[in-house]
Parts: sequence; structure tokens; C-alpha cells
Amino acid sequence: MKRIPVLEVFGPTVQGEGMVIGRKTMFVRTAGCDYSCSWCDSAFTWDGSAKGDIRMLTAYEVMEQLMQIGGNTFDHVTISGGNPALLPQLGTLIEELHERDISVALETQGSRWQDWFWLIDDLTLSPKPPSSGMKTDWAVLDDIVAKLEKRAVSFCLKTVVFDDEDLEYATYVHLRYPKVPFYVQAGNGQLQETEPQRMLPYLVERYEWLIDRVMPNPELNRVHVLPQLHTWVWGNKKGV
Amino acid sequence: MKRIPVLEVFGPTVQGEGMVIGRKTMFVRTAGCDYSCSWCDSAFTWDGSAKGDIRMLTAYEVMEQLMQIGGNTFDHVTISGGNPALLPQLGTLIEELHERDISVALETQGSRWQDWFWLIDDLTLSPKPPSSGMKTDWAVLDDIVAKLEKRAVSFCLKTVVFDDEDLEYATYVHLRYPKVPFYVQAGNGQLQETEPQRMLPYLVERYEWLIDRVMPNPELNRVHVLPQLHTWVWGNKKGV
Repeated sequence: MKRIPVLEVFGPTVQGEGMVIGRKTMFVRTAGCDYSCSWCDSAFTWDGSAKGDIRMLTAYEVMEQLMQIGGNTFDHVTISGGNPALLPQLGTLIEELHERDISVALETQGSRWQDWFWLIDDLTLSPKPPSSGMKTDWAVLDDIVAKLEKRAVSFCLKTVVFDDEDLEYATYVHLRYPKVPFYVQAGNGQLQETEPQRMLPYLVERYEWLIDRVMPNPELNRVHVLPQLHTWVWGNKKGV
Repeated sequence: MKRIPVLEVFGPTVQGEGMVIGRKTMFVRTAGCDYSCSWCDSAFTWDGSAKGDIRMLTAYEVMEQLMQIGGNTFDHVTISGGNPALLPQLGTLIEELHERDISVALETQGSRWQDWFWLIDDLTLSPKPPSSGMKTDWAVLDDIVAKLEKRAVSFCLKTVVFDDEDLEYATYVHLRYPKVPFYVQAGNGQLQETEPQRMLPYLVERYEWLIDRVMPNPELNRVHVLPQLHTWVWGNKKGV
């Protein structure tokens, strides 16, 4: 049984973004990413800075960790990264969770497919806009979307937006996959700020900017515009 | 054709709460309510203060208003009140909207049934907790939930929570209808505050209080905990 590289297990807390925003959930954060977005809020998962904190756990050990920390106060687990889609061995963990009636959410950029995507209850594909410095492989994303649509998985597309070029990219994503529920999310460019009182006015301004851009745009009608709610409450604090 | 008492038509803006939080939507606010919640944020719909602003419109005239204000920049309309469920004549408006491929959301306390509930795309039943001063008629709510479940309508229950007694009530609601997606929402007790900069710290504190109460509670696992996002951005401003 291949082990899972785990960096964080925490919760229960609220999901701060996207299609299940507000949902009470536990988080499992895996190490390793095929991307290196300029504004990544979890760069420690891939930049080597937290290398010593990675624990190689079996699916059963991850379950045990979740139970130890969350006890009987959760029924939903969000797997985030890094890019968890690099790990074929996550399928076993998802099955273990489902056996215990625990729902599973996943967040990934949509650069790799895994067959266990079909098992995910709330799947978010978040292709990265130009400001990230990454390039989207559209053929791979097309293939992932087609595979998910074939089996009626509950999934959405989400794009973080920092500027007008990002919003153009987001619009392209939405028009390319018009049937998929679409979320645009205001980006957080203040990753070093530790004081929530200073973060809040900035984040509200960025959210309002995005709302003002999306509302008059007839190409962006069937969309959700959301902030990262957890940063509004806890700033850049880890583990909440 | 019975006319609809309309107090506000505005948007597009983002839905600030509940099951479609963040969704780009237009709002139609109807006048009249069978409740008079102590903390109602739209008391002008029932306390007589905006009596002179009520316009009696046909469904077609409401459509025209929506088109005039929103143009081609929306595909979703939220009907709110007051209690729109007092108005049997809303069925025609919903049909008119659907004919134009426009989705319709409704928010109501669940004190009255209308057959057009079955047509709603995103239906929120928000029974009111003790702090409102209202009494829930459980037999009526049971009947509404049963009718909606019979026809696979996408609906949720949502309870605003101001204090521990409200949270006990919310827990009771969730346990009474365990299969229905459930949202708890932090209440806004500062309805007179007009300065967003003073509102924000208060609203964040109330949201964090609610999160802290829900997270350790094993009876509240399959829940969403959300704020009213529009008050975080615009305070108590009307028409946004």
C-alpha cells in the first residue's frame, strides 16, 4: 500500500471558498505540486520549506488522525494540497471515508486525472490564470471535464482573479465549459499580512472590485462571485 | 390577472447568503409579511413605513422592470420579501422567467405553502428562531418539507442565529429534517449602523462566535455556517 505524503490534518472548521463554502469540514493537506503559482497561499507544500514536516501515512493512519482530531464532530473531509491529483493512492482513503459515511471534497487545478475523481462528492477544478505564471493544458482539462460529465459527478470550475487579464482568462474558462457551475474568486495578494484587522479592508476592496467587474458583463451571468471567507476571519493563519 | 405588490427591483448583484451565496442575481422584493421578526432587516416591507412605495405590477411589468434595470446581464432572479409565499399570483412571474431561461430563487419562512414552490430552482425555507419573537407552526413546515421532497425540488433550510437559544432551535430544526441541506447564519444585530468600517469587526466577531459554537457540536455536522456576505461589503445599505 503506497503511503500518502501529508502536511496538515486539521478541523473541523468551515470551508472558506467555492462550491461548498461554509460547509463544516476537516482538512487533509497533501505535499507536492506540479505547479508553482506566484501567489500560492500554500507554497510550503512544494517549495521545500516544510519538507521536514511531511509525514508518510497510510490511508488508515490518515483516518486515525482525522478521528483523533475531529472525533465525532464531522462528516465531511476536504483534500487539498499542493495538488492531491498527483497521488493515485488517495483512492483508498476516499473509500475508507465513504465507508464511514463521510463525504469527500477535492480541490485540484485540473492538470492531472485520477480515476478516484469519480468518487469525489464535491470536486473543484481550479485552472490557474495568467497572474499565477502557469500555463493551462487545455487538452488535459477538456479530458477531465468530459470524464466527470460522463458520470454525473458534482463538480465545479473555479478561477482565482487578481486583475483584468485574469478575468479575461476566467471568462474564457466559463465559455469553454458553459454547462459547468462556475466560481470566480477574489485573489489574496497580501500573503505576508498577519493582522486580520489590516487584511479585512483590503480583502473587502478586492471582492468588491471583482463584483463590480462581473456584474455588467453579460458573458458572466451564470456565475458565483466569492471571496475566501477564511481569510476574512483568520487572515493568513494556518490550520484554521 | 392579480397584481404583485413590489417594493424593490434591483441588481444584478451577488446573493449574500444561503444555498446560492455568491450567485449573480437580480432581486425582486415583495411587500407584506405574516411575521414581524424583532430583528427583521426588511421591516419596511410590513411595518407601513414604505407603504407609499409599493407598486402593484403585473408579472409582465415585473419582467419589464427586470429587463430595464438588468438588461442582458443576468439569468437568475431572487424573490424575497416580506413573505412572497403570501402571493399566489407569483406563479405567473416564475413561468415568465423560466420561459426566458432565467432561474428563480425564493426565500420564505415556511409558514405558507404555494403550488408554485414546485417551480422554484433554489428554494430556501428559513424558520425563525426564538429571538425573532415568532412561533413556528411545525405542522405547516412539516407539510411544506414533505411536499418539496415528493418532487425533488432543490431546497434548503436556513436559520438565523443570534444567541445560544437560537442555536438550540436551529439544532432542533436540523434534527427534525436531517436529510435537508442545512444552513446556519450569523444574525445582524446592528441594523442602524451605516458605516461598513464599523460593521465589519462586529459581523466578523458574530460569524466567528457561531463557528466556534457549531464546530464542537456533533449534532451539527452536516451543516453550512455562513455570514450575510452583502452586509460585510455594503453594511445595511439598501438596493445592493
